[in-house]
Amino acid sequence: MAFFIGRDKEVRRAYGFDEVAIVPGSLTVDPEDTDISVELCGHKLQVPILASAMDGVVDPKIAIELGKLGALGVLNLDGIYTRYKNPYEQIEKIVSAPDDKVTEIIQQIYKEPVKEELIYERIKEIKKENVLCAVSTIPQNAPKYIQIAKQAKADIFVIQATVVTVKHYSSSYGCVDLEKICKESGLPVIIGNCVTYQVALQLMEIGASAVLVGVGPGAACTTRQVLGIGVPQITSTVDCARARDFYFKKTGKYVPVITDGGIITSGDMCKSFVAGADLVMFGSGFAKAKEAPGKGYHWGMAMPHFYLPRGARIYVGTTGSLKEILLGPSKTDDGTQNFVGALRTCMGNVGARRIKELQLAQLIIAPEIKTEGKRYQKEQRVGMGK
Amino acid sequence: MAFFIGRDKEVRRAYGFDEVAIVPGSLTVDPEDTDISVELCGHKLQVPILASAMDGVVDPKIAIELGKLGALGVLNLDGIYTRYKNPYEQIEKIVSAPDDKVTEIIQQIYKEPVKEELIYERIKEIKKENVLCAVSTIPQNAPKYIQIAKQAKADIFVIQATVVTVKHYSSSYGCVDLEKICKESGLPVIIGNCVTYQVALQLMEIGASAVLVGVGPGAACTTRQVLGIGVPQITSTVDCARARDFYFKKTGKYVPVITDGGIITSGDMCKSFVAGADLVMFGSGFAKAKEAPGKGYHWGMAMPHFYLPRGARIYVGTTGSLKEILLGPSKTDDGTQNFVGALRTCMGNVGARRIKELQLAQLIIAPEIKTEGKRYQKEQRVGMGK
Amino acid sequence: MAFFIGRDKEVRRAYGFDEVAIVPGSLTVDPEDTDISVELCGHKLQVPILASAMDGVVDPKIAIELGKLGALGVLNLDGIYTRYKNPYEQIEKIVSAPDDKVTEIIQQIYKEPVKEELIYERIKEIKKENVLCAVSTIPQNAPKYIQIAKQAKADIFVIQATVVTVKHYSSSYGCVDLEKICKESGLPVIIGNCVTYQVALQLMEIGASAVLVGVGPGAACTTRQVLGIGVPQITSTVDCARARDFYFKKTGKYVPVITDGGIITSGDMCKSFVAGADLVMFGSGFAKAKEAPGKGYHWGMAMPHFYLPRGARIYVGTTGSLKEILLGPSKTDDGTQNFVGALRTCMGNVGARRIKELQLAQLIIAPEIKTEGKRYQKEQRVGMGK
Amino acid sequence: MAFFIGRDKEVRRAYGFDEVAIVPGSLTVDPEDTDISVELCGHKLQVPILASAMDGVVDPKIAIELGKLGALGVLNLDGIYTRYKNPYEQIEKIVSAPDDKVTEIIQQIYKEPVKEELIYERIKEIKKENVLCAVSTIPQNAPKYIQIAKQAKADIFVIQATVVTVKHYSSSYGCVDLEKICKESGLPVIIGNCVTYQVALQLMEIGASAVLVGVGPGAACTTRQVLGIGVPQITSTVDCARARDFYFKKTGKYVPVITDGGIITSGDMCKSFVAGADLVMFGSGFAKAKEAPGKGYHWGMAMPHFYLPRGARIYVGTTGSLKEILLGPSKTDDGTQNFVGALRTCMGNVGARRIKELQLAQLIIAPEIKTEGKRYQKEQRVGMGK
Repeated sequence: MAFFIGRDKEVRRAYGFDEVAIVPGSLTVDPEDTDISVELCGHKLQVPILASAMDGVVDPKIAIELGKLGALGVLNLDGIYTRYKNPYEQIEKIVSAPDDKVTEIIQQIYKEPVKEELIYERIKEIKKENVLCAVSTIPQNAPKYIQIAKQAKADIFVIQATVVTVKHYSSSYGCVDLEKICKESGLPVIIGNCVTYQVALQLMEIGASAVLVGVGPGAACTTRQVLGIGVPQITSTVDCARARDFYFKKTGKYVPVITDGGIITSGDMCKSFVAGADLVMFGSGFAKAKEAPGKGYHWGMAMPHFYLPRGARIYVGTTGSLKEILLGPSKTDDGTQNFVGALRTCMGNVGARRIKELQLAQLIIAPEIKTEGKRYQKEQRVGMGK
Repeated sequence: MAFFIGRDKEVRRAYGFDEVAIVPGSLTVDPEDTDISVELCGHKLQVPILASAMDGVVDPKIAIELGKLGALGVLNLDGIYTRYKNPYEQIEKIVSAPDDKVTEIIQQIYKEPVKEELIYERIKEIKKENVLCAVSTIPQNAPKYIQIAKQAKADIFVIQATVVTVKHYSSSYGCVDLEKICKESGLPVIIGNCVTYQVALQLMEIGASAVLVGVGPGAACTTRQVLGIGVPQITSTVDCARARDFYFKKTGKYVPVITDGGIITSGDMCKSFVAGADLVMFGSGFAKAKEAPGKGYHWGMAMPHFYLPRGARIYVGTTGSLKEILLGPSKTDDGTQNFVGALRTCMGNVGARRIKELQLAQLIIAPEIKTEGKRYQKEQRVGMGK
Repeated sequence: MAFFIGRDKEVRRAYGFDEVAIVPGSLTVDPEDTDISVELCGHKLQVPILASAMDGVVDPKIAIELGKLGALGVLNLDGIYTRYKNPYEQIEKIVSAPDDKVTEIIQQIYKEPVKEELIYERIKEIKKENVLCAVSTIPQNAPKYIQIAKQAKADIFVIQATVVTVKHYSSSYGCVDLEKICKESGLPVIIGNCVTYQVALQLMEIGASAVLVGVGPGAACTTRQVLGIGVPQITSTVDCARARDFYFKKTGKYVPVITDGGIITSGDMCKSFVAGADLVMFGSGFAKAKEAPGKGYHWGMAMPHFYLPRGARIYVGTTGSLKEILLGPSKTDDGTQNFVGALRTCMGNVGARRIKELQLAQLIIAPEIKTEGKRYQKEQRVGMGK
Repeated sequence: MAFFIGRDKEVRRAYGFDEVAIVPGSLTVDPEDTDISVELCGHKLQVPILASAMDGVVDPKIAIELGKLGALGVLNLDGIYTRYKNPYEQIEKIVSAPDDKVTEIIQQIYKEPVKEELIYERIKEIKKENVLCAVSTIPQNAPKYIQIAKQAKADIFVIQATVVTVKHYSSSYGCVDLEKICKESGLPVIIGNCVTYQVALQLMEIGASAVLVGVGPGAACTTRQVLGIGVPQITSTVDCARARDFYFKKTGKYVPVITDGGIITSGDMCKSFVAGADLVMFGSGFAKAKEAPGKGYHWGMAMPHFYLPRGARIYVGTTGSLKEILLGPSKTDDGTQNFVGALRTCMGNVGARRIKELQLAQLIIAPEIKTEGKRYQKEQRVGMGK
């Protein structure tokens, strides 16, 4: 269906998590019989979930712990852990900053330069526990850091910016040759973020081992408010998954699509897979773990930007252990614990035994009705008056 | 109309209660001349309303009282009444639990095993008052409990899970043969919940006496948040009613459709019938009765789930007697009392003399405008400042 | 455009005030050059605005004052003024009732029977000031009261119920013959409320002098919550105006359409005319007048209903004089004062010199963006922190 | 796609800022390589941003400062600066007025007549600092004031009313001949506001040097509530940009389109350009500058209207310097500082090197999800409880 937003100007409608829902299938499956493992960069992940490279979410300890639980935490190479020998002092400053000072304090803390020896050390710290190690940086730093990562025996290298494209123009600096990095570095490279069929396909063509999908949909991300840019996650995931399927048909190479950003509940995660994702990535959900370095806070990677900070420090509280959040059992009923249990139960209800079957389940457009919430709150409000 | 949520991905739009409204007819009828009785499982119900098998809503006393008023309360065989000789002690614990402990406390209470002699006793307790007795359990327990229910002379057996299908796969346990239960147990069986034409039709084909329609639309149900699964009630009711009509045309057998979940006001109930329902089922509305065991609270059947609890304890307050809520007169103006009066008045306004005529009334899409509410609240706020 | 709310179930989309906006024209006109007068029941009204027959809004004094200002206040013959010699004592009880008792208190007050001599007296009270007098009752009382109204020399008789149709069925009472009343009573009769083309046309065909349009859209009306019934005002006005135009083409008789219900701001009023209304009727806006009997409160005509009360007592406050509200100057900027000035300015901006030209202006669908409001509130909140 | 709001009544759907988002491109560009300059009335503006002619936003000092930063502040010739020798006394009264008196106080202050010698003086004050000077008045005052403006050597003359058309009818006064002013005054004239293709084209045809686009979309503007009139900014910008392109094709003359009203964040500004604007104008964003005369408050030009005031005094607070707001660096993350940095970054992300390329970027319909906000607030609320 075409929409006209003005005279002769036709545009598409995009959809986000809260606008769709999954339809139960005609067959159900015992959740115990579901297989949620996926292949990523030549490794088999037992749990198709990545933790975002945010300083309040993933430190080396979290990366290790997640690896042991079957998932994957990505360490930010441009963050506090590679700028400071003792990162926790700095995190304490961020966590205890008053609301009206926090942007400035974060900007200040991130002015300290990254130390290359700390990159090496942090990776070693993770690898010595015998788990997969994934590290992340921005395109400009990728050529240099990937060499260090390789020496330190990292397994997966992530190149990530708000918006990544294969072609980039600058008159003042030489542009990063992503294709060269992918083909010559000797490490599998995940690249993102992108949201369109075209860019996802181009990233696959230059050799990305997986692509990250998502620009401007997240709660801790103000890209849309600051730049006007953003594509809701269901539509961008569908589009990029179509690029993956086309590229697979053409080349026989299957490049996983990772939905990254905006996932808050296990319901959002389930919808991502039905939209076509092979894996998902989120930060806020893990920031609630009692092991998380941010002590209940998280903040975006674009927040320290000096001229144009985006994102906010968000307090999400500490609600349970990393294991409870990932594998359960859940002590809450709001979709923020036991992501794996929710995924298996969802698969059971739609009759999918593997992630690739879940991708074939049916979605409907079904906006969350706000008045429903209103009623609900009203009832609770009555309760508080008791 | 088709909607594309991404490249070549076409999905349907589904609608909920708050998005539609009933259009008055060209003929009106005296509400006193309306006949709201329906047939269910070979019995004539004077009032086409069922109370949900929730422990805070239906205990044996409520089931008896509802039967005397012409409606039907369903007793949960997997709940507190069959686990505990003295269930009210346990309910007191739930009702008085602090908000942050309630999920754990409920999980604890429901660990106590069900006693088969209590199933027998509870049914007898209801039957000796000479009213219809309907009892409910999950599919796994159905083969065993239906025998006890039959011995105790229950009238109607309900098999209910979040999502029910005829076909189910498990490698670790033998699957429940719903068809066998329907055809050999000797008791009429109502099965649910389902939301699609296909599953509703399959349930009718294996011998269900009625089907329950509704997955993920209710206020006390967080299925959508946890699993991403849910279909708004108007669309699921329309679809399942179509299955009923097709099955009736094909076989001459009329299998009633019961809209279950999400009904809060009498307006929601009226819309369910216009969408095609033969009966409705709700819990929250009856939890407000001063006779309700939950003392103004209710909680969902999926809430005690150990690994993945869903639903919440909700305080709705105590607003009137069971009779006022069902038959009026109403002392409130918000659609939460006198459900029967509202149904008759609605039928009068659209010119329907029987429920089957009400099913032919006209709906329109007419979203509730939030700003209207805002204005309204604003005006009231001014009033409070007085 | 057709919408499917379920399998093979196609329904229309209806629109309300907050979903549309008026587009400025290619010609503008000096507001001083606009003519807003309309003809109603053989009389010329200088101002095309009626005040609703609500006891908190129109007493004989308000009816007189509105008449002098060029508008028309309708007196409720089933209300307090014809039940009590001293109505203001009763109003005081309603106004001072606590929130949780008000429905019961109103039900109690309206149990007092109507006195026929008071009907006669109230009309005389208005007529002796030499203004138009319009009175209103429900269909059942119409045959009797219209005779009294005629004797007392009322000018216009209004027959009004939540939903009115020409055909009505009752086994227990003889149905009111609206056609007979229209044709034999000798008084012009306005009938309502209706919302569809069919019913509006039928009312015109049996001799209504004007029709009232609106079921379930108003802020003080909970018809939609209680009965599920309601049609947003823009769509119902468009449809009934189409019936008027068809009937005029066929018979040469022009039967004005009056949009009644849901109008809160002068913007809503302007949109009603652009949707096709000849006149508008509202209550809440006049309840804010310092001369209003309700002292800043109003309540709906369906509120005293014994078995199924609908509507609520709403406090809107007292914000200005009746003249300021109707003719300005305005001391507020929110569209609640100077309705006539707003109408003329709107007509100027779309280039309409008469109401019938305003009916030809262009509407667009343009939902009010809630976030806009949020931002606005946020900014004000900052202000409060000052 | 056509929408029917009633029987045979087809209308268009219009879109606003919060309903669309910008899609990243397949090429990215270094923000340092973007050129944001535009031509306006024969002058080159380094920054395509105008500050609205609002008394709380632009005084001569702000106009000078903005000029030095490469942008353009428009001085209101019908406001306080030309009515009072000492305008700051009056502003102090407005700023310190209590909420319920402010409309009346503003009405009172604006009763003082405009002094022609103050018009001359204010323009001279700006021009002696060697920056561009733009001044604004309503159509009725244009013929007289444009002569004074020309003598005082103003560079750009703005004729602005809520709704402007080429054709206007009045029986009591001679209508302003906009064409004559444009063609004979010797000063470039910007005219507005308009929202339709037709009117924009007509204004270009009579010689406007640029057109202002926007009726009823702004936060400080209650046009829609009072008059029912308003067109969301994305649709009106697209339509008027189409008129510009048609006129350019026909005549070779390029008449810039300026989106005026409703822009709150830098994201809104970016979307305006993608919808087709050449420049943008806003007031609220600059009212937050510590140099702003309104001390954190602003109010609309229609607010002093005697019979029908529209707009409100809004407190936005003081958040940074004019330079920080316009050029950064930003200390906030909400899109209210560093508008130029945001524009360049947006252009970089969509691969546009000039404003005219940005106009070709892709938009999608992507409503801001309110529940997303709700979640976000909820999380923050938890934080506050800490």
